[in-house]
Amino acid sequence: MSKTNEAAALDQTSVIHSTFTLERTFPQPPKKVFQAFADKETKRRWLIEGEGWNIHAYDADFRIGGSDASRFDYKGGPELTNDTQYQDIVADQRIVFSYRMTMGGKPLSASLVTVEFTASGKGTVMTYTEQGAYFDGGMEAAKGREEGTRWLMDRLAAEVAR
Amino acid sequence: MSKTNEAAALDQTSVIHSTFTLERTFPQPPKKVFQAFADKETKRRWLIEGEGWNIHAYDADFRIGGSDASRFDYKGGPELTNDTQYQDIVADQRIVFSYRMTMGGKPLSASLVTVEFTASGKGTVMTYTEQGAYFDGGMEAAKGREEGTRWLMDRLAAEVAR
Repeated sequence: MSKTNEAAALDQTSVIHSTFTLERTFPQPPKKVFQAFADKETKRRWLIEGEGWNIHAYDADFRIGGSDASRFDYKGGPELTNDTQYQDIVADQRIVFSYRMTMGGKPLSASLVTVEFTASGKGTVMTYTEQGAYFDGGMEAAKGREEGTRWLMDRLAAEVAR
Repeated sequence: MSKTNEAAALDQTSVIHSTFTLERTFPQPPKKVFQAFADKETKRRWLIEGEGWNIHAYDADFRIGGSDASRFDYKGGPELTNDTQYQDIVADQRIVFSYRMTMGGKPLSASLVTVEFTASGKGTVMTYTEQGAYFDGGMEAAKGREEGTRWLMDRLAAEVAR
């Protein structure tokens, strides 16, 4: 699609739909990688802690029908919110969740994420698929989400190697 | 993709990801079509009532962060459940929701749906995009969802024409 056509598409709709899939291998077994999503304090470390990030609120309820909620900013910038709902969980194999994000009170996106864990030798192949809807000219947000998720997966890898 | 390759793909993953978009035009204005999603009793009529359907439970809370829950069966078959979470709402313009379905207690799918309403003359162009994850050999479910949604949109059209 040419740039001109992309611009035309943006004029016709306020929502951009975009899907990406990341595959990562870990030397640790599926149980260990799964646990980094399931355990509240472990997840907090790789998902929202880090230099420059200020955490205003964090709660996690890892069960089908349960919700997570986090509120944070980066170096005093606008508040970001992440509200997650667990859609399906199969222990050590699969986690499916939806989440919506806002920045400074403005809706940014809603997404459906499928994380699958498969044993490979002593390690794990993890497949992360995010089906996203980005609001109000969110083409840049759609592009940035994949990059941001790759960065988070690096943090996850460091966490499970601790 | 050949049938053989489809079968191979099913062996490699327990989740099928599939997206479809439906566009429908209505002679009624956006406010009227939007209301058929927003009003609890109106929505009940086109979404889950009808000959052969037994409704065990129905609740709706149409606001960002709110949830719907319905439990029903078709002619005494296995119980179906639909749990919906509202991700974003812009009055008369946009509704984004996630929902998960089970049948007989078995998880079937989780989806992210974007419904956009655009005025067109005195009527409405509605765009319905469903980004779905179908569990455990859900290729047939993925195919059936689009067909089932077209049928629901016919019921929606009849409802707004009442």
